[in-house]
Amino acid sequence: MAVAVDSRVRDERKDNDAAALDYLAELVAEDLQAVNAVIVDRMQSSVALIPQLAGYIVAAGGKRLRPMLTLASARLCGYTGDHDKLLAAAVEFIHTATLLHDDVVDESGLRRGRASANAVFGNQASVLVGDFLFSRAFLLMVETGSLEVLRILSRASAVIAEGEVLQLQTTNNIETDEAAYLDVIRGKTAALFAAACQVSVVIAGRSADEAAALERYGMNLGIAFQLVDDLLDYSSLHRQFGKTIGDDFREGKMTLPVVLAYQRGNESERAFWRRVLQDGNQVDGDLDRAIAIMRRHRVHETAFDRAHGFVAAAKASLTGFDDSPIRQALLDVANFVVEREF
Amino acid sequence: MAVAVDSRVRDERKDNDAAALDYLAELVAEDLQAVNAVIVDRMQSSVALIPQLAGYIVAAGGKRLRPMLTLASARLCGYTGDHDKLLAAAVEFIHTATLLHDDVVDESGLRRGRASANAVFGNQASVLVGDFLFSRAFLLMVETGSLEVLRILSRASAVIAEGEVLQLQTTNNIETDEAAYLDVIRGKTAALFAAACQVSVVIAGRSADEAAALERYGMNLGIAFQLVDDLLDYSSLHRQFGKTIGDDFREGKMTLPVVLAYQRGNESERAFWRRVLQDGNQVDGDLDRAIAIMRRHRVHETAFDRAHGFVAAAKASLTGFDDSPIRQALLDVANFVVEREF
Repeated sequence: MAVAVDSRVRDERKDNDAAALDYLAELVAEDLQAVNAVIVDRMQSSVALIPQLAGYIVAAGGKRLRPMLTLASARLCGYTGDHDKLLAAAVEFIHTATLLHDDVVDESGLRRGRASANAVFGNQASVLVGDFLFSRAFLLMVETGSLEVLRILSRASAVIAEGEVLQLQTTNNIETDEAAYLDVIRGKTAALFAAACQVSVVIAGRSADEAAALERYGMNLGIAFQLVDDLLDYSSLHRQFGKTIGDDFREGKMTLPVVLAYQRGNESERAFWRRVLQDGNQVDGDLDRAIAIMRRHRVHETAFDRAHGFVAAAKASLTGFDDSPIRQALLDVANFVVEREF
Repeated sequence: MAVAVDSRVRDERKDNDAAALDYLAELVAEDLQAVNAVIVDRMQSSVALIPQLAGYIVAAGGKRLRPMLTLASARLCGYTGDHDKLLAAAVEFIHTATLLHDDVVDESGLRRGRASANAVFGNQASVLVGDFLFSRAFLLMVETGSLEVLRILSRASAVIAEGEVLQLQTTNNIETDEAAYLDVIRGKTAALFAAACQVSVVIAGRSADEAAALERYGMNLGIAFQLVDDLLDYSSLHRQFGKTIGDDFREGKMTLPVVLAYQRGNESERAFWRRVLQDGNQVDGDLDRAIAIMRRHRVHETAFDRAHGFVAAAKASLTGFDDSPIRQALLDVANFVVEREF
């Protein structure tokens, strides 16, 4: 767990975490380079601002976790063609478009530790370049010649938007429960993880059962990933690493740590949560007090238990596939998303 | 021309204009009802805010010109299936999504004479519901089973975004010339008109030449449509009809009337244009002064001549099709877009 772990253990685990992702990255390194080439090629436009802005956020990079899942799933299914690279790039374009639109949505000043694209280029350009990348993503899918791929990813895109709107509706709503929270992250995060894995089974021409299995893997992995993401936003250990925390708190997002803390809180604590999240009336020290209350109610432990449950489900969905280095890497990545501290 | 026409003539022409569009609407009335049913059906979501917000802007309706073009093009090509209704709905969804994102982009308070969706529901929801409708549009295309349709409309969507970004870059840039202005409207408006017509030829299984011809029809029609739209924003006659004018002026958009007036202006006039459009420093009476300057340089006449040129090109591209009521209606619609005063 990210909390209450002494630094020696933490450092060891950090190495393991890094190793888990590096191992997958290593296995698909060549393909990932090809994907990056596709990304740079397809974000070009005669309108200079587009590659400029798209490059700013795509170059920021992140972990390229979603494209890696598409490549790894293709490998797991014995796919040997090139369409998985196009789809991995399409998945990253869709992800990037949602980040750009999310910057507008959240008015967040930071994205991946840098000033967000809309803080630098403005909301208007961020929305439009997001639309551009979204459209180019569909052009990439068309190149695979698979209508099923287009069906899966256009449906996933609609579900992502639904999840984000649902998040808007639950923001500042102190009565939001765990079920509503899970609906939000299933949509805004897990749906794309699931589609990123599923489309590779489709182009590999494998069975519907195998497609469903990898969809389950991605869905459960995505839920666990977001659960931990939301938890780290209240992790004082995370802050020790020099990361910004408390974004969700400042925005009044009803993530699981808050949902649990409110449920378990006494009257004075509930009054606190209503003031800071429902009324959005926050003063210095409130974030620390929030974290202290969460500690007292062992919120992080419960949230990590939930995450481990989804990780177990993700791993279980791979039982039908023969053991192989790539299968092992997908199992390790599942462990990584709950053990990561970055 | 919208300017300097006495009210009697104007009223007569208004009747003709209405007749032109009504004739087309009459010919495709049944199909258009089916399209509206598809639109209402496919904007549904378990997330209540989505149909609520989408309904707000889709219900506002507008002229449904784009879906009518898709239906009429299908009819012109002798198509008898149902996929044209799905595509007409998809085209309207894409159009609606761009309006929602445009509301964010332009921070415009009014859309089709009502408070814009983002003024009522907020930027965040407008962006996300636009993404939702855009995704649902692609799901509708998938149902037609035509990858070519998906290729055409995803490419058009990318071009729309490029046109909108280009518009951002030319805004407040007093040196913008007519060529740059035409690039903007080709992208932000005409590309969807062109695709709306072209996809019907594809599902009808007609020749590439016929697809190119209807693409040309839509492209030229769209350019003429936007040219007149931009002109009407400086039409004092338009204001007499109780329409808001001067939106582009207030936003510093470099539309053709301004481009021409600046080119033809003397030094004091150019200083005026730099102050109001480049520096965005406007005071009461500036809009009337702008219109007066345009009148003096016969800007409206030139812009209408340009529009008539594109209308002629649109009509010429239909010569290869046998005469029929639907072909006549498409010719009349071309006249309508330059003669309309609403």
